[in-house]
Amino acid sequence: MSFSGLQTLVEALRALPGIGPKSAQRIAYHLLQSDRIGALRLGKALVYAAEQMKNCTRCNTFTEVGICETCLDPDRDATLLCIVETPVDQNRVEQTLTFKGFYFVLMGHLSPLDGVGPDEIYFEQLIRRATDGVVKEVVLATSFTNEGEATAYYLTQVLKSRGLEVSRLARGVPVGAELEYVDPETIARAVLDRRVL
Amino acid sequence: MSFSGLQTLVEALRALPGIGPKSAQRIAYHLLQSDRIGALRLGKALVYAAEQMKNCTRCNTFTEVGICETCLDPDRDATLLCIVETPVDQNRVEQTLTFKGFYFVLMGHLSPLDGVGPDEIYFEQLIRRATDGVVKEVVLATSFTNEGEATAYYLTQVLKSRGLEVSRLARGVPVGAELEYVDPETIARAVLDRRVL
Repeated sequence: MSFSGLQTLVEALRALPGIGPKSAQRIAYHLLQSDRIGALRLGKALVYAAEQMKNCTRCNTFTEVGICETCLDPDRDATLLCIVETPVDQNRVEQTLTFKGFYFVLMGHLSPLDGVGPDEIYFEQLIRRATDGVVKEVVLATSFTNEGEATAYYLTQVLKSRGLEVSRLARGVPVGAELEYVDPETIARAVLDRRVL
Repeated sequence: MSFSGLQTLVEALRALPGIGPKSAQRIAYHLLQSDRIGALRLGKALVYAAEQMKNCTRCNTFTEVGICETCLDPDRDATLLCIVETPVDQNRVEQTLTFKGFYFVLMGHLSPLDGVGPDEIYFEQLIRRATDGVVKEVVLATSFTNEGEATAYYLTQVLKSRGLEVSRLARGVPVGAELEYVDPETIARAVLDRRVL
Protein backbone atom coordinates (compact mmCIF):
# COMPACT_ATOMS: atom_id res chain seq x y z
CA MET A 1 0.00 0.00 0.00
CA SER A 2 1.20 3.50 -0.77
CA PHE A 3 0.45 4.95 2.63
CA SER A 4 3.32 7.40 3.06
CA GLY A 5 1.32 10.65 3.30
CA LEU A 6 -1.22 8.99 5.52
CA GLN A 7 1.36 7.31 7.73
CA THR A 8 3.15 10.64 8.15
CA LEU A 9 -0.13 12.28 9.15
CA VAL A 10 -1.00 9.55 11.66
CA GLU A 11 2.41 9.86 13.29
CA ALA A 12 2.27 13.67 13.30
CA LEU A 13 -1.12 13.61 15.04
CA ARG A 14 0.61 12.00 18.02
CA ALA A 15 1.95 15.48 18.85
CA LEU A 16 -1.53 16.32 20.14
CA PRO A 17 -1.75 15.76 23.89
CA GLY A 18 -3.66 12.61 24.84
CA ILE A 19 -3.80 11.16 21.33
CA GLY A 20 -2.55 7.57 21.06
CA PRO A 21 -1.89 5.55 17.89
CA LYS A 22 -5.50 4.32 17.52
CA SER A 23 -7.08 7.75 18.00
CA ALA A 24 -4.52 9.23 15.61
CA GLN A 25 -5.55 6.76 12.93
CA ARG A 26 -9.25 7.42 13.52
CA ILE A 27 -8.75 11.19 13.37
CA ALA A 28 -6.70 10.94 10.18
CA TYR A 29 -9.37 8.87 8.42
CA HIS A 30 -12.14 11.11 9.69
CA LEU A 31 -10.43 14.24 8.38
CA LEU A 32 -9.57 12.71 5.01
CA GLN A 33 -12.96 11.08 4.54
CA SER A 34 -15.27 13.76 5.93
CA ASP A 35 -13.52 17.08 6.44
CA ARG A 36 -10.77 17.92 3.95
CA ILE A 37 -11.50 21.62 4.25
CA GLY A 38 -11.15 21.49 8.02
CA ALA A 39 -7.94 19.48 7.69
CA LEU A 40 -6.45 22.00 5.28
CA ARG A 41 -7.48 24.95 7.44
CA LEU A 42 -6.00 23.32 10.54
CA GLY A 43 -2.80 22.44 8.70
CA LYS A 44 -2.28 25.99 7.50
CA ALA A 45 -3.11 27.46 10.92
CA LEU A 46 -0.57 25.16 12.56
CA VAL A 47 2.19 25.98 10.11
CA TYR A 48 1.50 29.70 10.42
CA ALA A 49 1.35 29.66 14.22
CA ALA A 50 4.40 27.43 14.63
CA GLU A 51 6.45 29.67 12.35
CA GLN A 52 5.12 33.11 13.25
CA MET A 53 4.10 33.18 16.90
CA LYS A 54 6.69 34.67 19.23
CA ASN A 55 6.60 35.61 22.90
CA CYS A 56 6.00 39.29 23.65
CA THR A 57 9.27 40.73 24.92
CA ARG A 58 7.44 42.59 27.68
CA CYS A 59 4.59 40.38 28.92
CA ASN A 60 5.62 37.04 27.42
CA THR A 61 2.22 36.25 25.85
CA PHE A 62 2.04 34.83 22.33
CA THR A 63 2.15 37.48 19.64
CA GLU A 64 3.01 37.78 15.98
CA VAL A 65 4.90 41.03 16.54
CA GLY A 66 7.68 41.94 18.96
CA ILE A 67 5.53 43.63 21.60
CA CYS A 68 1.85 42.72 21.91
CA GLU A 69 -1.06 45.15 21.61
CA THR A 70 -1.83 45.05 25.31
CA CYS A 71 1.69 46.10 26.24
CA LEU A 72 1.52 48.95 23.73
CA ASP A 73 -1.78 50.29 25.12
CA PRO A 74 -1.00 53.84 26.39
CA ASP A 75 -4.16 54.03 28.51
CA ARG A 76 -3.09 51.38 31.01
CA ASP A 77 -1.81 51.99 34.52
CA ALA A 78 1.89 51.17 34.37
CA THR A 79 2.18 50.90 38.14
CA LEU A 80 0.05 47.72 38.14
CA LEU A 81 1.34 44.37 36.91
CA CYS A 82 -0.91 41.29 36.96
CA ILE A 83 0.79 37.88 36.85
CA VAL A 84 -1.17 35.06 35.21
CA GLU A 85 -0.31 31.48 34.29
CA THR A 86 -1.60 31.44 30.71
CA PRO A 87 -2.94 33.74 27.97
CA VAL A 88 -6.38 32.19 28.62
CA ASP A 89 -6.22 33.34 32.24
CA GLN A 90 -5.18 36.79 31.02
CA ASN A 91 -8.30 36.89 28.83
CA ARG A 92 -10.46 35.90 31.79
CA VAL A 93 -9.13 38.76 33.90
CA GLU A 94 -9.30 41.18 30.98
CA GLN A 95 -12.96 40.32 30.28
CA THR A 96 -13.94 41.46 33.79
CA LEU A 97 -12.94 45.06 32.93
CA THR A 98 -11.75 45.45 36.53
CA PHE A 99 -8.02 45.54 35.90
CA LYS A 100 -6.42 48.42 34.05
CA GLY A 101 -2.74 47.60 34.42
CA PHE A 102 -0.33 45.44 32.45
CA TYR A 103 0.20 41.69 32.51
CA PHE A 104 2.96 39.13 32.68
CA VAL A 105 2.24 35.60 31.46
CA LEU A 106 4.26 32.83 33.14
CA MET A 107 3.19 30.20 30.56
CA GLY A 108 2.78 27.69 33.36
CA HIS A 109 3.27 27.29 37.06
CA LEU A 110 6.02 25.94 39.30
CA SER A 111 5.86 22.15 39.38
CA PRO A 112 9.20 20.69 40.48
CA LEU A 113 8.05 17.09 39.97
CA ASP A 114 7.38 17.85 36.30
CA GLY A 115 10.71 19.64 35.96
CA VAL A 116 9.13 23.09 35.90
CA GLY A 117 11.31 25.41 37.96
CA PRO A 118 11.75 29.20 37.92
CA ASP A 119 13.57 29.12 34.56
CA GLU A 120 10.59 27.47 32.88
CA ILE A 121 8.19 30.19 34.05
CA TYR A 122 10.44 32.99 32.76
CA PHE A 123 11.44 34.10 36.21
CA GLU A 124 14.37 36.34 35.17
CA GLN A 125 12.24 38.10 32.57
CA LEU A 126 9.46 38.62 35.13
CA ILE A 127 11.88 40.15 37.65
CA ARG A 128 13.26 42.51 34.99
CA ARG A 129 9.72 43.51 34.03
CA ALA A 130 8.50 43.99 37.61
CA THR A 131 11.55 46.01 38.67
CA ASP A 132 11.41 48.53 35.84
CA GLY A 133 11.03 51.30 38.41
CA VAL A 134 7.47 52.08 37.34
CA VAL A 135 5.58 49.01 38.59
CA LYS A 136 4.49 49.47 42.21
CA GLU A 137 2.00 46.68 42.81
CA VAL A 138 2.10 43.13 41.50
CA VAL A 139 -1.27 41.34 41.47
CA LEU A 140 -0.84 37.57 41.65
CA ALA A 141 -3.60 35.94 39.60
CA THR A 142 -2.22 32.41 39.41
CA SER A 143 -4.78 29.64 39.91
CA PHE A 144 -5.95 28.57 43.36
CA THR A 145 -4.65 25.07 42.81
CA ASN A 146 -1.70 23.63 44.75
CA GLU A 147 0.72 24.55 41.97
CA GLY A 148 -0.78 28.01 41.48
CA GLU A 149 -0.63 28.71 45.21
CA ALA A 150 2.96 27.47 45.45
CA THR A 151 3.91 29.68 42.51
CA ALA A 152 2.19 32.67 44.13
CA TYR A 153 3.97 31.97 47.44
CA TYR A 154 7.37 31.78 45.77
CA LEU A 155 6.80 34.95 43.75
CA THR A 156 5.52 36.80 46.82
CA GLN A 157 8.78 36.16 48.67
CA VAL A 158 10.97 37.28 45.81
CA LEU A 159 8.94 40.32 44.75
CA LYS A 160 8.49 41.60 48.28
CA SER A 161 12.24 41.37 48.86
CA ARG A 162 12.60 43.73 45.88
CA GLY A 163 10.41 46.29 47.60
CA LEU A 164 7.27 45.71 45.51
CA GLU A 165 3.76 45.61 46.89
CA VAL A 166 2.29 42.17 46.22
CA SER A 167 -1.42 41.31 46.24
CA ARG A 168 -3.42 38.17 45.51
CA LEU A 169 -6.91 37.75 44.02
CA ALA A 170 -9.49 37.47 46.82
CA ARG A 171 -10.72 34.01 47.77
CA GLY A 172 -14.27 33.38 48.90
CA VAL A 173 -17.72 32.18 47.95
CA PRO A 174 -18.32 32.41 44.17
CA VAL A 175 -20.97 34.85 42.97
CA GLY A 176 -24.35 33.12 42.60
CA ALA A 177 -23.37 30.19 44.80
CA GLU A 178 -25.76 28.66 47.33
CA LEU A 179 -23.84 28.14 50.57
CA GLU A 180 -25.25 24.61 50.83
CA TYR A 181 -23.23 23.57 47.79
CA VAL A 182 -19.98 25.43 48.50
CA ASP A 183 -17.13 23.25 49.76
CA PRO A 184 -16.10 23.73 53.42
CA GLU A 185 -12.58 24.92 52.56
CA THR A 186 -13.97 27.80 50.52
CA ILE A 187 -16.40 28.75 53.28
CA ALA A 188 -13.59 28.57 55.84
CA ARG A 189 -11.52 30.94 53.70
CA ALA A 190 -14.50 33.27 53.24
CA VAL A 191 -15.01 33.41 57.01
CA LEU A 192 -11.34 34.15 57.69
CA ASP A 193 -11.19 36.79 54.95
CA ARG A 194 -14.60 38.33 55.79
CA ARG A 195 -14.94 42.04 54.99
CA VAL A 196 -15.97 44.62 57.53
CA LEU A 197 -18.89 46.60 56.10
CA MET B 1 -4.29 41.53 22.17
CA SER B 2 -2.93 40.57 18.78
CA PHE B 3 -4.29 37.06 18.83
CA SER B 4 -5.23 36.53 15.20
CA GLY B 5 -2.91 33.63 14.36
CA LEU B 6 -3.67 32.00 17.67
CA GLN B 7 -7.43 32.54 17.40
CA THR B 8 -7.39 31.04 13.91
CA LEU B 9 -5.52 28.02 15.24
CA VAL B 10 -7.90 27.53 18.16
CA GLU B 11 -10.89 27.64 15.83
CA ALA B 12 -9.25 25.33 13.29
CA LEU B 13 -8.53 22.75 16.00
CA ARG B 14 -12.29 22.34 16.41
CA ALA B 15 -12.21 20.27 13.20
CA LEU B 16 -10.76 17.44 15.28
CA PRO B 17 -13.50 15.07 16.46
CA GLY B 18 -14.36 15.51 20.14
CA ILE B 19 -12.42 18.74 20.63
CA GLY B 20 -14.44 21.56 22.19
CA PRO B 21 -13.42 25.22 22.61
CA LYS B 22 -11.59 24.68 25.90
CA SER B 23 -9.59 21.68 24.72
CA ALA B 24 -8.78 23.52 21.52
CA GLN B 25 -7.32 26.40 23.49
CA ARG B 26 -5.33 24.07 25.72
CA ILE B 27 -3.95 22.16 22.75
CA ALA B 28 -2.99 25.38 20.95
CA TYR B 29 -1.06 26.69 23.94
CA HIS B 30 0.57 23.35 24.56
CA LEU B 31 1.81 23.11 20.98
CA LEU B 32 3.04 26.71 20.86
CA GLN B 33 4.65 26.57 24.27
CA SER B 34 6.13 23.09 24.29
CA ASP B 35 6.12 21.50 20.85
CA ARG B 36 6.64 23.88 17.94
CA ILE B 37 8.39 21.18 15.94
CA GLY B 38 5.46 18.80 16.41
CA ALA B 39 3.02 21.54 15.49
CA LEU B 40 4.89 22.35 12.31
CA ARG B 41 5.19 18.68 11.36
CA LEU B 42 1.48 18.11 11.95
CA GLY B 43 0.56 21.24 10.02
CA LYS B 44 2.59 20.20 6.99
CA ALA B 45 1.28 16.61 7.14
CA LEU B 46 -2.32 17.88 7.22
CA VAL B 47 -1.83 20.25 4.31
CA TYR B 48 -0.11 17.55 2.29
CA ALA B 49 -2.70 14.87 3.05
CA ALA B 50 -5.68 17.17 2.51
CA GLU B 51 -4.33 18.29 -0.84
CA GLN B 52 -2.75 15.09 -2.14
CA MET B 53 -4.70 12.09 -0.84
CA LYS B 54 -7.20 10.68 -3.30
CA ASN B 55 -9.30 7.54 -3.30
CA CYS B 56 -7.91 4.63 -5.32
CA THR B 57 -10.09 4.30 -8.40
CA ARG B 58 -10.18 0.51 -8.00
CA CYS B 59 -10.31 -0.27 -4.25
CA ASN B 60 -11.28 3.14 -2.87
CA THR B 61 -8.54 3.28 -0.20
CA PHE B 62 -6.59 6.48 0.35
CA THR B 63 -3.66 6.88 -2.01
CA GLU B 64 -1.49 9.61 -3.41
CA VAL B 65 -1.60 8.13 -6.89
CA GLY B 66 -4.52 7.08 -9.10
CA ILE B 67 -4.40 3.36 -8.35
CA CYS B 68 -2.85 2.14 -5.09
CA GLU B 69 0.07 -0.28 -4.82
CA THR B 70 -2.09 -3.15 -3.63
CA CYS B 71 -4.35 -2.92 -6.67
CA LEU B 72 -1.29 -2.87 -8.95
CA ASP B 73 0.22 -6.01 -7.38
CA PRO B 74 0.38 -8.59 -10.20
CA ASP B 75 0.81 -11.53 -7.79
CA ARG B 76 -2.65 -11.32 -6.30
CA ASP B 77 -5.59 -13.59 -7.07
CA ALA B 78 -7.98 -11.44 -9.09
CA THR B 79 -10.90 -13.83 -8.51
CA LEU B 80 -11.00 -12.88 -4.80
CA LEU B 81 -12.29 -9.54 -3.52
CA CYS B 82 -12.32 -8.75 0.21
CA ILE B 83 -14.66 -5.99 1.40
CA VAL B 84 -13.57 -4.06 4.48
CA GLU B 85 -14.94 -0.98 6.24
CA THR B 86 -11.70 1.01 6.59
CA PRO B 87 -8.05 1.05 5.47
CA VAL B 88 -7.16 0.03 9.05
CA ASP B 89 -9.27 -3.10 8.71
CA GLN B 90 -7.59 -3.80 5.39
CA ASN B 91 -4.20 -3.64 7.12
CA ARG B 92 -5.41 -6.04 9.79
CA VAL B 93 -6.45 -8.61 7.20
CA GLU B 94 -3.30 -8.03 5.16
CA GLN B 95 -1.04 -8.60 8.19
CA THR B 96 -2.42 -12.13 8.62
CA LEU B 97 -0.89 -13.16 5.26
CA THR B 98 -3.92 -15.41 4.73
CA PHE B 99 -5.64 -13.45 1.99
CA LYS B 100 -4.07 -13.13 -1.43
CA GLY B 101 -6.82 -11.37 -3.37
CA PHE B 102 -7.75 -7.74 -3.83
CA TYR B 103 -9.70 -5.39 -1.56
CA PHE B 104 -12.50 -2.87 -1.65
CA VAL B 105 -12.72 -0.29 1.14
CA LEU B 106 -16.23 0.98 1.94
CA MET B 107 -14.91 3.86 4.12
CA GLY B 108 -17.69 3.16 6.59
CA HIS B 109 -20.72 0.98 7.12
CA LEU B 110 -24.43 1.37 6.52
CA SER B 111 -26.01 3.41 9.29
CA PRO B 112 -29.34 4.90 8.17
CA LEU B 113 -29.83 6.82 11.41
CA ASP B 114 -26.56 8.70 10.75
CA GLY B 115 -27.54 9.30 7.15
CA VAL B 116 -25.11 6.70 5.81
CA GLY B 117 -26.83 4.84 2.98
CA PRO B 118 -25.44 2.88 0.01
CA ASP B 119 -24.20 6.05 -1.72
CA GLU B 120 -22.00 6.92 1.25
CA ILE B 121 -20.27 3.53 1.19
CA TYR B 122 -19.49 3.77 -2.53
CA PHE B 123 -22.01 1.13 -3.48
CA GLU B 124 -22.05 1.81 -7.23
CA GLN B 125 -18.26 1.72 -7.40
CA LEU B 126 -18.22 -1.55 -5.43
CA ILE B 127 -20.72 -3.17 -7.77
CA ARG B 128 -18.68 -2.09 -10.82
CA ARG B 129 -15.54 -3.47 -9.19
CA ALA B 130 -17.13 -6.79 -8.14
CA THR B 131 -18.78 -7.39 -11.50
CA ASP B 132 -15.65 -6.92 -13.60
CA GLY B 133 -16.07 -10.47 -14.90
CA VAL B 134 -12.92 -11.68 -13.13
CA VAL B 135 -13.99 -11.60 -9.47
CA LYS B 136 -15.68 -14.87 -8.48
CA GLU B 137 -15.83 -14.75 -4.68
CA VAL B 138 -16.47 -11.73 -2.49
CA VAL B 139 -15.22 -12.11 1.11
CA LEU B 140 -17.18 -9.87 3.50
CA ALA B 141 -14.83 -8.67 6.23
CA THR B 142 -16.98 -5.92 7.72
CA SER B 143 -17.00 -5.77 11.51
CA PHE B 144 -19.17 -8.06 13.62
CA THR B 145 -21.04 -5.12 15.08
CA ASN B 146 -24.70 -4.41 14.35
CA GLU B 147 -23.80 -1.95 11.59
CA GLY B 148 -21.13 -4.22 10.13
CA GLU B 149 -23.52 -7.17 10.11
CA ALA B 150 -26.29 -5.12 8.52
CA THR B 151 -23.87 -3.93 5.85
CA ALA B 152 -22.75 -7.52 5.21
CA TYR B 153 -26.35 -8.68 4.97
CA TYR B 154 -27.27 -5.96 2.49
CA LEU B 155 -24.19 -6.59 0.34
CA THR B 156 -24.81 -10.36 0.43
CA GLN B 157 -28.27 -9.91 -1.11
CA VAL B 158 -27.07 -7.61 -3.86
CA LEU B 159 -23.88 -9.47 -4.74
CA LYS B 160 -25.54 -12.90 -4.78
CA SER B 161 -28.22 -11.57 -7.14
CA ARG B 162 -25.37 -10.69 -9.51
CA GLY B 163 -24.24 -14.30 -9.51
CA LEU B 164 -21.19 -13.83 -7.26
CA GLU B 165 -20.15 -16.25 -4.54
CA VAL B 166 -20.27 -14.41 -1.21
CA SER B 167 -18.49 -15.49 1.98
CA ARG B 168 -18.11 -14.02 5.44
CA LEU B 169 -15.23 -14.22 7.93
CA ALA B 170 -15.78 -17.13 10.31
CA ARG B 171 -17.17 -16.35 13.73
CA GLY B 172 -16.19 -18.33 16.80
CA VAL B 173 -13.99 -18.50 19.86
CA PRO B 174 -10.93 -16.21 19.57
CA VAL B 175 -7.53 -17.88 19.48
CA GLY B 176 -6.03 -18.10 22.97
CA ALA B 177 -9.38 -17.61 24.72
CA GLU B 178 -10.41 -19.62 27.78
CA LEU B 179 -13.98 -20.79 27.29
CA GLU B 180 -14.85 -19.63 30.79
CA TYR B 181 -14.36 -16.01 29.74
CA VAL B 182 -15.93 -16.12 26.27
CA ASP B 183 -19.39 -14.52 26.03
CA PRO B 184 -22.34 -16.92 25.49
CA GLU B 185 -23.28 -15.44 22.10
CA THR B 186 -19.83 -16.21 20.73
CA ILE B 187 -19.93 -19.76 22.14
CA ALA B 188 -23.42 -20.25 20.69
CA ARG B 189 -22.14 -19.16 17.27
CA ALA B 190 -19.09 -21.44 17.61
CA VAL B 191 -21.36 -24.41 18.42
CA LEU B 192 -23.65 -23.73 15.46
CA ASP B 193 -20.71 -23.22 13.08
CA ARG B 194 -18.68 -26.15 14.47
CA ARG B 195 -16.34 -27.81 11.97
CA VAL B 196 -16.42 -31.53 11.18
CA LEU B 197 -12.88 -32.87 11.58
